[in-house]
Amino acid sequence: MTGNHLLWTVRVGHFGDLDTRRFDRTGTPEVILAEGKRDEHLEQLCRAFVGEADMALVSRLTPDRVHLVESNAWTTEYHEEARLALLKTNEATPPKHGGRVGVIAAGTSDVGIAEEARITASVSGSQTQRAYDVGVAGPHRIDQALEAMDPKPHVFVAVAGREAALPTVLAAKVKEPVIGVPTSIGYGHGGDGESALMSILQSCAPLLAVNIDAGIPAGLCADKVAKLASRRRT
Amino acid sequence: MTGNHLLWTVRVGHFGDLDTRRFDRTGTPEVILAEGKRDEHLEQLCRAFVGEADMALVSRLTPDRVHLVESNAWTTEYHEEARLALLKTNEATPPKHGGRVGVIAAGTSDVGIAEEARITASVSGSQTQRAYDVGVAGPHRIDQALEAMDPKPHVFVAVAGREAALPTVLAAKVKEPVIGVPTSIGYGHGGDGESALMSILQSCAPLLAVNIDAGIPAGLCADKVAKLASRRRT
Amino acid sequence: MTGNHLLWTVRVGHFGDLDTRRFDRTGTPEVILAEGKRDEHLEQLCRAFVGEADMALVSRLTPDRVHLVESNAWTTEYHEEARLALLKTNEATPPKHGGRVGVIAAGTSDVGIAEEARITASVSGSQTQRAYDVGVAGPHRIDQALEAMDPKPHVFVAVAGREAALPTVLAAKVKEPVIGVPTSIGYGHGGDGESALMSILQSCAPLLAVNIDAGIPAGLCADKVAKLASRRRT
Amino acid sequence: MTGNHLLWTVRVGHFGDLDTRRFDRTGTPEVILAEGKRDEHLEQLCRAFVGEADMALVSRLTPDRVHLVESNAWTTEYHEEARLALLKTNEATPPKHGGRVGVIAAGTSDVGIAEEARITASVSGSQTQRAYDVGVAGPHRIDQALEAMDPKPHVFVAVAGREAALPTVLAAKVKEPVIGVPTSIGYGHGGDGESALMSILQSCAPLLAVNIDAGIPAGLCADKVAKLASRRRT
Amino acid sequence: MTGNHLLWTVRVGHFGDLDTRRFDRTGTPEVILAEGKRDEHLEQLCRAFVGEADMALVSRLTPDRVHLVESNAWTTEYHEEARLALLKTNEATPPKHGGRVGVIAAGTSDVGIAEEARITASVSGSQTQRAYDVGVAGPHRIDQALEAMDPKPHVFVAVAGREAALPTVLAAKVKEPVIGVPTSIGYGHGGDGESALMSILQSCAPLLAVNIDAGIPAGLCADKVAKLASRRRT
Amino acid sequence: MTGNHLLWTVRVGHFGDLDTRRFDRTGTPEVILAEGKRDEHLEQLCRAFVGEADMALVSRLTPDRVHLVESNAWTTEYHEEARLALLKTNEATPPKHGGRVGVIAAGTSDVGIAEEARITASVSGSQTQRAYDVGVAGPHRIDQALEAMDPKPHVFVAVAGREAALPTVLAAKVKEPVIGVPTSIGYGHGGDGESALMSILQSCAPLLAVNIDAGIPAGLCADKVAKLASRRRT
Amino acid sequence: MTGNHLLWTVRVGHFGDLDTRRFDRTGTPEVILAEGKRDEHLEQLCRAFVGEADMALVSRLTPDRVHLVESNAWTTEYHEEARLALLKTNEATPPKHGGRVGVIAAGTSDVGIAEEARITASVSGSQTQRAYDVGVAGPHRIDQALEAMDPKPHVFVAVAGREAALPTVLAAKVKEPVIGVPTSIGYGHGGDGESALMSILQSCAPLLAVNIDAGIPAGLCADKVAKLASRRRT
Amino acid sequence: MTGNHLLWTVRVGHFGDLDTRRFDRTGTPEVILAEGKRDEHLEQLCRAFVGEADMALVSRLTPDRVHLVESNAWTTEYHEEARLALLKTNEATPPKHGGRVGVIAAGTSDVGIAEEARITASVSGSQTQRAYDVGVAGPHRIDQALEAMDPKPHVFVAVAGREAALPTVLAAKVKEPVIGVPTSIGYGHGGDGESALMSILQSCAPLLAVNIDAGIPAGLCADKVAKLASRRRT
Repeated sequence: MTGNHLLWTVRVGHFGDLDTRRFDRTGTPEVILAEGKRDEHLEQLCRAFVGEADMALVSRLTPDRVHLVESNAWTTEYHEEARLALLKTNEATPPKHGGRVGVIAAGTSDVGIAEEARITASVSGSQTQRAYDVGVAGPHRIDQALEAMDPKPHVFVAVAGREAALPTVLAAKVKEPVIGVPTSIGYGHGGDGESALMSILQSCAPLLAVNIDAGIPAGLCADKVAKLASRRRT
Repeated sequence: MTGNHLLWTVRVGHFGDLDTRRFDRTGTPEVILAEGKRDEHLEQLCRAFVGEADMALVSRLTPDRVHLVESNAWTTEYHEEARLALLKTNEATPPKHGGRVGVIAAGTSDVGIAEEARITASVSGSQTQRAYDVGVAGPHRIDQALEAMDPKPHVFVAVAGREAALPTVLAAKVKEPVIGVPTSIGYGHGGDGESALMSILQSCAPLLAVNIDAGIPAGLCADKVAKLASRRRT
Repeated sequence: MTGNHLLWTVRVGHFGDLDTRRFDRTGTPEVILAEGKRDEHLEQLCRAFVGEADMALVSRLTPDRVHLVESNAWTTEYHEEARLALLKTNEATPPKHGGRVGVIAAGTSDVGIAEEARITASVSGSQTQRAYDVGVAGPHRIDQALEAMDPKPHVFVAVAGREAALPTVLAAKVKEPVIGVPTSIGYGHGGDGESALMSILQSCAPLLAVNIDAGIPAGLCADKVAKLASRRRT
Repeated sequence: MTGNHLLWTVRVGHFGDLDTRRFDRTGTPEVILAEGKRDEHLEQLCRAFVGEADMALVSRLTPDRVHLVESNAWTTEYHEEARLALLKTNEATPPKHGGRVGVIAAGTSDVGIAEEARITASVSGSQTQRAYDVGVAGPHRIDQALEAMDPKPHVFVAVAGREAALPTVLAAKVKEPVIGVPTSIGYGHGGDGESALMSILQSCAPLLAVNIDAGIPAGLCADKVAKLASRRRT
Repeated sequence: MTGNHLLWTVRVGHFGDLDTRRFDRTGTPEVILAEGKRDEHLEQLCRAFVGEADMALVSRLTPDRVHLVESNAWTTEYHEEARLALLKTNEATPPKHGGRVGVIAAGTSDVGIAEEARITASVSGSQTQRAYDVGVAGPHRIDQALEAMDPKPHVFVAVAGREAALPTVLAAKVKEPVIGVPTSIGYGHGGDGESALMSILQSCAPLLAVNIDAGIPAGLCADKVAKLASRRRT
Repeated sequence: MTGNHLLWTVRVGHFGDLDTRRFDRTGTPEVILAEGKRDEHLEQLCRAFVGEADMALVSRLTPDRVHLVESNAWTTEYHEEARLALLKTNEATPPKHGGRVGVIAAGTSDVGIAEEARITASVSGSQTQRAYDVGVAGPHRIDQALEAMDPKPHVFVAVAGREAALPTVLAAKVKEPVIGVPTSIGYGHGGDGESALMSILQSCAPLLAVNIDAGIPAGLCADKVAKLASRRRT
Repeated sequence: MTGNHLLWTVRVGHFGDLDTRRFDRTGTPEVILAEGKRDEHLEQLCRAFVGEADMALVSRLTPDRVHLVESNAWTTEYHEEARLALLKTNEATPPKHGGRVGVIAAGTSDVGIAEEARITASVSGSQTQRAYDVGVAGPHRIDQALEAMDPKPHVFVAVAGREAALPTVLAAKVKEPVIGVPTSIGYGHGGDGESALMSILQSCAPLLAVNIDAGIPAGLCADKVAKLASRRRT
Repeated sequence: MTGNHLLWTVRVGHFGDLDTRRFDRTGTPEVILAEGKRDEHLEQLCRAFVGEADMALVSRLTPDRVHLVESNAWTTEYHEEARLALLKTNEATPPKHGGRVGVIAAGTSDVGIAEEARITASVSGSQTQRAYDVGVAGPHRIDQALEAMDPKPHVFVAVAGREAALPTVLAAKVKEPVIGVPTSIGYGHGGDGESALMSILQSCAPLLAVNIDAGIPAGLCADKVAKLASRRRT
């Protein structure tokens, strides 16, 4: 919190103030939440970011707005299921630290959020594995999924909606930290993800939580945890 | 929970993991919730399911998506009021166990959910009867409805929104188990079904509950209960 | 709803109006909720009930109030863990219909509510079995519990607090109907039973629910369901 | 809103500002809520009120605090079930307008609030009748209660907790206005009266509501309505 | 609750069961909630109703659906602000009992619900007066509105959203009963009408409440109260 | 509250009752909330207001409705980001009192509400400064923003969504009053602004709050506070 | 945020880290919340604070814990109604800046919180006035209270529970900023202060809010605002 | 999930079913929640556990119940602030893996939960450091606390109540994973920890969350994460 602050930010119009040292300080890439931003703000923020950093993620980006974040000046990689775009300068090479993140999802409807978490962790440097639609209604599927992940992940991300029993059942079977991601899958009382969130927070097995549909924080945090393990080998 | 798990599931892309033994294990048909699934996921899951099982239900399917679950390889029976499709192989013959489920709904607006429950129970093997728009604002209608159900059901499903007094009033009149289904009919404080759900949970008469608008679980559970009674006669 | 109503009720002071035909109409014994009733009301209601019926249950009765429901005129059987008293005339013989109810509880703290449900079902005529502290944090315990219940129950009551994954996991393994009973075990967000209730309502396996800590309705309803099965043998 | 305001209020210490024209303006007696007031405030407010008006009600007064509102200067009539004290100057004669209020309560536990409403209406001038413990679990009791109220009330107050089906069922049977009073009887989800309140607000029959456990406003409003009818005869 | 029930109802397809004696029993006209009903259900219910009764109200009817309730067989009077249609046989003459209902609304945005209440009361037989946009932000407007209502109403309906101070302020000024109608006007915390509902329920002046945006019950109940007063003159 | 009230209001149809003395009484300009008003009501209210006052604000006005508030009779200044229109007679000169308001926003998505507050304060007479996208994820940006505001504001408006740490962090650094404005930016549990509102209300530093997205009240109140300071110099 | 941080804090055991520059930075005195602190922590924190600063406030201090904050080394001034203790070194002279704060409370039960706010503002340097029990149920009392405050306050604190109409009604009458303080007075739906908080947040007149029962922040903020005005005269 | 399950559990009366393989499976010690357990259950469970495992934690144990978990057969180490007891056989030597956990708390009132987390992590094998009362109201204290932690922790636990800005501010400054623990410190709207939980879930910096007051899961998960890092050095 010392030094010349003016060198640390870049103003974008009256609406943006880029924090150009965030990666150095916290080790996580910039993520711009597209949802709720005006078109012209989104466009100009992306332009400014890519000028200052090697790469940035744009989250909750619907297909009809992808063109706003495309440019000749950088590469745009869009993942439709995850509604996620990776912008990177043409010469950028994403980091690879070797920590492993395993992403597990309970149902087909959870795949979008699961992929958001997985791609975020991958872009941040983790090696990722996935097993989706392995909810507790068919409980043998979790055991299968775990067996298939080889080498074993250092940390798990467990994505589930409705009653979200999967993260608890998983945490009761493994030694690694498990991050539960509740999704807004379901209907009726608690169907907007509140039930899944509560289940993860109330779990009788030790679980870490992020907010409902919060694939991005899940991916960033899983990567931070996996990175701890990876250092072991360096 | 023993044996070769790999034989029990069928992978569908990266997003589906069919549990092919669910019917053997729990006695209930597969139900695919269409709502919240991407078109291509829904299509491929249906294809895979009908390859593995005799039949499947697709719930919360809007008319404009019916074509996604139609195929020459199977029969699709669509119930618009219930937003429910039954897919079955052409040679499949649905079970019939003779247990009886009576479905009662308080208002005209509850008919969609009531039919969802009734058709689900019927497809699962129960004999069903129905009486709709018999809410307590005209209390003699319930007595009429009960008299008209002959032979008497083994279990009742009582569907109601708003203050949902019907399930309580019914349970105070009959010996059979009553399953209350709250609906999201109403407006204002509690109008999204929360009032109806609370009424059923707080009932001074013994009632069983499912979630708001949860016609599918109501139908599956009612069928399980009715099947218990039916065995009596075999 | 015909006949001479005056013969169906017995007034008790200005505060009670006994419904003497409830058992004939609905097949369930009288249950008096002690909690929230004044001492003198509780005493006089019990006296009047036992005069009119063979037996009655008094629920949520704390040990220091048991003396209020004791009398030479009847037998009082008090179950402290369940906070439940059974009052019966000395000549009464509780019914036995042979239907079987299996009660399963996730943790030691759920035992009080589980016993409330089990004793209620037993008093109503069911044969009961129990397996407590078999939550999903040690998932093999459920399988053990199921194997130990022989002959198999016709219906299960699954009692759980916190994230309440047990009822879902159980319903994914058995063909019989499962009634989930959420308990107010836990702390923090959703710790007053709201999390457990939501989990049961949102379950991806077909579940029936009663309210938080509602051992009495769970026992009464489980008995109604089990009775359906028992008739088979008569 | 004209004239010399200083004559309309009487200061009591720094904590009270008696509104001595309220009865003239709104036709309702003063009601002092004892709950939440300090002993010395309660004592001094009562003293000041009885000096200014003929009578006052003190609500939510627990037995151990009755002595605070007793004095040689006035008569104190305490109703323990209703936790309500009527203070009146020795020469005061309560009004009698002849309008009739019928108070109906669903269960024995609702009697306290029901009596609070009934006594309030009575003190305000109405003729009152009562029928308690006539909930819908024994539905014939309501018909009996209605038959026994002769002459018929001009307005009903229907007091109920839990699922509060009684006010709706009553309003579906009578032409007179019905005021529903939810009580905080119950436990679990909605058991603090929220379920009962929602039921009354969502009723499919036309109902008026007051807040949970709000016997005082129910009694005051019922009296206002009954008074309209009574004028007919004058 | 005696006699031949079959004569009291008229079945409409599988989705309607008209209660043809409701007016005789409760004195209120039939109201069909259009919202949430399928087009074909709405059409057929209206046809059946007008065959059985002199008139019916159709509420929450959007302009594009008015044609569904029009017919040569009866007169349709549509009030767009109130989204309310009155259907009556050509020979029907609405009742007039002379009781007076005064409808007061806090803001311009509350006018739709206020008119729904006023027209409902009027159609039911009351004489109505109105004063809208007289909220407490300009407190002198209430006094003006009261002075302008001559002769004075027997009962008030006070419609308000946001903090809903108007019903309380009004009830502190008049002797007549006041029915508060919270509206879903506002935004942010409590802006969906929950704030207004709470204010009315918590009022320090005696108030009766209906649900959020519940103009119909407000109008029906106000009419019942006003009718009590009107009898005086007959 | 004395004098001839009839001179203080202007009726607009049956739906409007202009309070023409509000500015004299409270010192704040008229603000018409466009959201939730019918087109014809909005049009006529604006016409009437500008006839009676020098200026008025129209808030939550979407671009497609701007034409409704335009007229040759007055000037319309529309701020799209803020969804705010200022209507003023051609000869009106907005007040200038010299008090200073500093508006600070945490993220780009908060800019709309921040501008709503800032323009409202400016129109009311304050001198305003702004610094947006200076949230705590890049904490040095706040210090920069404060240094750049010269001369220092007399009062701050701090606009933030999600966890809304900015208002607290700001209030821990300055002597001036800080008004926190929570915004409905975010998703998942608390994402509709409830989290931000709670943070501001629970702040461990002294903070004043307005409702979620309530830029208008924030601007009006900030102006009232700044005006206090400005008087110093006159 | 520069300089030697180690000089800015004083450690107290492992549980306290005094911020000795807070007054210099923010202009507000230290306030220690006694509620929720262990006896030994409270005692040691007070001792440390008075060593570092001239004075400190201890809030939510029950009478039985006053002895914990008494010492020969400083003066303890305890206000029982406000549950507030002022600790000051014997030589300290509280500041006096001449800004004026008017505190208004709706009911007798609100007096404790009102006094907490008033004493806090007074200790911080403001001149204070008070008028309690002037709620809108007797609306002329507000006008009286305003007239009696002479000279007029620069800012108002309006304390109210239940429906909290007082802050809105006050803000519609005065030009000065008004800070609404909701109190947890009331019962039933919204009776824990949620209703009052919502009313203040939803007010149709411009209001600033603090949390439920938050007399301390209200007093501190009111003082900051009043101080702005006072400078005028210096 | 294979092998002889009967060897994996030990029954304790009818209320306990010890999972003796949990440590082997998940790497976390047994934790018995004392709160909500009957005295005799708690006593017998402890006895059985210590017979089967080397050590166990008993959480939420009030001082008056410590004697229940003491025995000659094992050592009981009781931490009063944390309400936590460590039971271990006399020969047990707790693990030490060298991973480092830094626990930071915002206020003095958060110390109990912070210590619960810290001791749990320590008992599980981590090396721990602590810095308490370093909330954002005195923001320089966080920087001081970070500088004082040397060597730097591998993972942080940030404990905070009220608006819980500390975890966010911390996560914006460090590269390590941060686990936020909301506490039920505060009063009014959101004061039971809901505000703090929401802030952590809504954080604009990447944060992991556990439930309100959930020191145990926080400690167990932090230890799992730290253990990943420690392996590096082995």
